[in-house]
Amino acid sequence: MRLFDYVWSGNCHKVKLFASILSVPLEIVPVDLLAAEHTRPPLSELNAFCELPVLIDGDLVLRDSAAILIYLARRHGGEDWYPSGASDVALVSQWLGTAAANVNFGPALARGAEHFGYPADRAMTSRISDRLFFALEGHLQRRRWLELNRPTLADIAMFPYVAAAPEGGINLTTFPAIQRWIKQIEELPHFIAMPKVPSP
Amino acid sequence: MRLFDYVWSGNCHKVKLFASILSVPLEIVPVDLLAAEHTRPPLSELNAFCELPVLIDGDLVLRDSAAILIYLARRHGGEDWYPSGASDVALVSQWLGTAAANVNFGPALARGAEHFGYPADRAMTSRISDRLFFALEGHLQRRRWLELNRPTLADIAMFPYVAAAPEGGINLTTFPAIQRWIKQIEELPHFIAMPKVPSP
Repeated sequence: MRLFDYVWSGNCHKVKLFASILSVPLEIVPVDLLAAEHTRPPLSELNAFCELPVLIDGDLVLRDSAAILIYLARRHGGEDWYPSGASDVALVSQWLGTAAANVNFGPALARGAEHFGYPADRAMTSRISDRLFFALEGHLQRRRWLELNRPTLADIAMFPYVAAAPEGGINLTTFPAIQRWIKQIEELPHFIAMPKVPSP
Repeated sequence: MRLFDYVWSGNCHKVKLFASILSVPLEIVPVDLLAAEHTRPPLSELNAFCELPVLIDGDLVLRDSAAILIYLARRHGGEDWYPSGASDVALVSQWLGTAAANVNFGPALARGAEHFGYPADRAMTSRISDRLFFALEGHLQRRRWLELNRPTLADIAMFPYVAAAPEGGINLTTFPAIQRWIKQIEELPHFIAMPKVPSP
């Protein structure tokens, strides 16, 4: 399996993290986002949305980090990470939606604006982040993991940009339950950390 | 099953549309988003993200439209709409991510800004919409349905805000494949249309 990857992308990191946890080897193909390599062939032909990550497995070309996580879970992780039953799969899927919308356009975009010059409406990223961290803290005050009392794709999908939120100027010290949950994920077997963005 | 619903929300509409297609009855609980009812109890206690839709089925409380679609598909739709196999479920899931991110922060937010005064960075909504409709048109020029040569949750999740894009000032006349795909969905048995926003 080949993963087209950008080293500072949390959406790429969640795929590498999950592959590591499952002990699935990935061939990493680095893409230079800042040089806009994702907007030119071969990337733009593999994914017309010009987004990373992209996974290739034989004839299958997959875009969207959550879709790739689901693929890895179904092929290599059995029922543990992305279950089949109606309620369980729906509960986990809620957080794939939150990661795609609220996380990407909240803390992830704030970090991108701060460090990589992404154009961003900072009032929007703050509004979304405030609501997100409030809701997440409340949820994790009553639970050890996001759903099903065990680590699932919900935790993997949410983790990278929540843990990296301080790089976008978001202070996590007032969110003890979120900090505890970050630590739990860091203690999973075969955990790999996302590299910290170098200070300017 | 009770659905907390906002009549002008495409994310609520996709749940009502899919329930109609599956002939699953829903008890609709209208919520007045413009009066901020979603930010107060009981809604804010059912969903701390203060977003709609929310589905209640017995003890189960679900937020996030894609998660609710997956729940309905698994409970009432068999394997057709959200399959179990690794490649098939991943291919369909790609579009649930696109609906959550690119659609919500592109054409859906443009429509919200235009008609409901949602704060929006219009440069961002245009940039995201341009890429989205370009990629979607190219994809649908080579396929009848988004994935698997049949209607799936991918089509249901993408449909409402793509079809309603003109209400956000996006002209669909230059996208013939998207227009053909919209028509196909409108011809599905038990299709229900989202009401058009009244002109100001």
